[in-house]
Amino acid sequence: MMLKHSVYFDGAVQSVGFERLGRRATVGVIAAGEYHFGTDGAERMTVVSGTLRARLDGTADWVHYPAGTCFEIPPSSGFDVEALGGPAAYLCEFL
Amino acid sequence: MMLKHSVYFDGAVQSVGFERLGRRATVGVIAAGEYHFGTDGAERMTVVSGTLRARLDGTADWVHYPAGTCFEIPPSSGFDVEALGGPAAYLCEFL
Repeated sequence: MMLKHSVYFDGAVQSVGFERLGRRATVGVIAAGEYHFGTDGAERMTVVSGTLRARLDGTADWVHYPAGTCFEIPPSSGFDVEALGGPAAYLCEFL
Repeated sequence: MMLKHSVYFDGAVQSVGFERLGRRATVGVIAAGEYHFGTDGAERMTVVSGTLRARLDGTADWVHYPAGTCFEIPPSSGFDVEALGGPAAYLCEFL
C-alpha cells in the first residue's frame, strides 16, 4: 500500500501518510480536543484548515496557528496540540 | 465517529472527512495515477502538497494545479484528476 491510514486517540486524530521525492509526509485531521505527540525526527506541521494551538515540550507557552501557518518540532521531542472551535486539518512533513 | 476515513480506487486515494462550522470537508492523498470523481454538490479542491492536473467533465483541457492553488467543480458533475510526479495531498471543501 502506497498510502497509509493511521489512527490515534481512539480515532480523534487520523492521517493518511505518503512519500514523494523520498520524503515522508502525512495529511490528517485533529478533532476538537487536546493531544500530545512525540517526535522521532524533526517535523513541520502546517495548518491546512481550522486553527491549532500548540506547546512544544520544554516550553511554557501555547501558541495559536491559524490555517496557512506552520510550526516545527525538534527531533526526539514532542508537543501538545489542541484543535480550536472544531476539527483542524494539517500537513505534517518529516524533515 | 467524528472523523471518517474513506478509501477509493483500491486505496490509491484515501481521505479523512470532518465537519466544522456546519461545513463538510476532507483532506486526503491521491497516489500517482489518473482517476475520475463525480460530485453531488459543488466542491473546491485545494492542493496542499505536490501537483495535480485536472480536467472538468465537459471540458477538453487538462490544467496544472501546483501546491497552494485550487479549482472548483460544479454540482452534479465530475472531474478527471492525476497526481504528477508522486502522491499529492489535497483539501476538498463541500461548498
